[in-house]
Amino acid sequence: MPLQPDLDLKTYLSKKREMVDAALKDYLPEPEGLTSDLIEAMRYSLFAGGKRLRPILCLAGADAVGPLEKDPLPVACALELIHTYSLIHDDLPLMDDDDLRRGKPTSHKVFGEPMALLAGDGLLTEAFRLMTSPEMSVRISADRLLRVIRLIAHAAGYGGMVGGQAVDIQWEGRKADLQVVKFMHTHKTGALITASVVSGAMLGGAGESEISAITAYGEHIGLAFQIADDILDIEGDSAALGKRVGADIQKGKMTYPAVLGMEESKDIQNTLVQTAIQDLRPFGSSAEPLRQIARYIIERKT
Amino acid sequence: MPLQPDLDLKTYLSKKREMVDAALKDYLPEPEGLTSDLIEAMRYSLFAGGKRLRPILCLAGADAVGPLEKDPLPVACALELIHTYSLIHDDLPLMDDDDLRRGKPTSHKVFGEPMALLAGDGLLTEAFRLMTSPEMSVRISADRLLRVIRLIAHAAGYGGMVGGQAVDIQWEGRKADLQVVKFMHTHKTGALITASVVSGAMLGGAGESEISAITAYGEHIGLAFQIADDILDIEGDSAALGKRVGADIQKGKMTYPAVLGMEESKDIQNTLVQTAIQDLRPFGSSAEPLRQIARYIIERKT
Repeated sequence: MPLQPDLDLKTYLSKKREMVDAALKDYLPEPEGLTSDLIEAMRYSLFAGGKRLRPILCLAGADAVGPLEKDPLPVACALELIHTYSLIHDDLPLMDDDDLRRGKPTSHKVFGEPMALLAGDGLLTEAFRLMTSPEMSVRISADRLLRVIRLIAHAAGYGGMVGGQAVDIQWEGRKADLQVVKFMHTHKTGALITASVVSGAMLGGAGESEISAITAYGEHIGLAFQIADDILDIEGDSAALGKRVGADIQKGKMTYPAVLGMEESKDIQNTLVQTAIQDLRPFGSSAEPLRQIARYIIERKT
Repeated sequence: MPLQPDLDLKTYLSKKREMVDAALKDYLPEPEGLTSDLIEAMRYSLFAGGKRLRPILCLAGADAVGPLEKDPLPVACALELIHTYSLIHDDLPLMDDDDLRRGKPTSHKVFGEPMALLAGDGLLTEAFRLMTSPEMSVRISADRLLRVIRLIAHAAGYGGMVGGQAVDIQWEGRKADLQVVKFMHTHKTGALITASVVSGAMLGGAGESEISAITAYGEHIGLAFQIADDILDIEGDSAALGKRVGADIQKGKMTYPAVLGMEESKDIQNTLVQTAIQDLRPFGSSAEPLRQIARYIIERKT
């Protein structure tokens, strides 16, 4: 895809989103046989109207370093499967106990708690099966693919997302300092966002210095994304978000605005986005989508 | 390891178990920092006295085709991580609601439900990180390793273990026919057992005909293992098992004895083990551990 500095982000995002949605439909089986309810539960959450930010970051990371087209799609989709599993498990009564997600009843409300748990487990496991599909190894070297899978497993596991979740629940209702909140944010959300864009760059054939630059970009937008989420939970619009506003405060969740106040939180997210854009200096116009996505991350309403 | 037809299974199993335990201790981090409780929860269930059957099957599968020694250990340990995650999630109040496992309080009893959920998620994810460790790719070709990871992800996911679990909960308290019970058993337990021994053989360098033979062996012992579990739930010793006997019946779980009666169930498990041993005819004395493990699977008391 030839990219222009005057790129229209909205068109870029919707084109990529369509590509991801089509691939996801293709990869997930039709519900049939004895496990049809499980498959239906997996599909229900996967097609509940997500922004597809992580897959798009993966594709845009690949675009930044070379013309790959559809090659990274299995990895891009695997990232969405991992994100979706984490939402299903988060929403369970034993965790956040949320009834609504993107304006729709959450998985356990529709399928019951046992099936929701298993749908999450199934999506997480399927993500790794998808990344090892023979389709991937046709154009990507097996060594590079193994490195990508390891990066994503690290970002999703105890050293990343699951670790951030654990800290989140342990500090609920307690007064945390900035160090703890930053740890939570960079692990709970930041790690998988960073891995999304870096995995795309790796699949696109990035060299080590390009990987370093994209990693820095990912870390900066990852933290900005979660701070923006914190702010949306206070200033956002319930209808647009498809969930209650103010839920974080009610649950005693530690957030940037709670620790630093609204004004300083907004300053920090703006600085993070500027820094992320500077991280992309080694890249030319091919990284224009990533630059615009950095801005979009703090300007979005949902 | 040179293998003899007069192999002492007990020594073989305990040697391999020690090897696996040492590697698991090595791979799992020490609990420290903000995520120390999560790591502790992951380690608690991992070192709660499991038989290490899946890792041992993986190592024995490798032994059957060639002298590999410790090479398959990361994959062998990953299989134990996957097995352990499935037990933690199964024991949750929203699933089987079990307080005891191997004579010890279950994860959620010790760490609370949210941390138990996350410990399971963390173990499953770490399994895939472990399999992609640089240590693996030194002696195993990356292409072969990707095939092994795909095999295991399939066996653990909706097409295997998670699928079997889904059918299990949906049929609880309902009268199932043999077809449903067989599906449940081959998926819930059989799939990962089969993948364990096949992954070992693949890592050991097995050719396609050897892989087919070992797959047939794995499928036969996998089903025999679950039927033996059903029988132990009725005829077993609570103290030795470390859990209540009769729990399956109480929960209205469908089992082979419930559908076919005890005598026919025992006939079937014996036939399965005989067939599994015949599946190994292409192999010489190197497959002696696998032959003896097949017998052990239905003779075990725990």
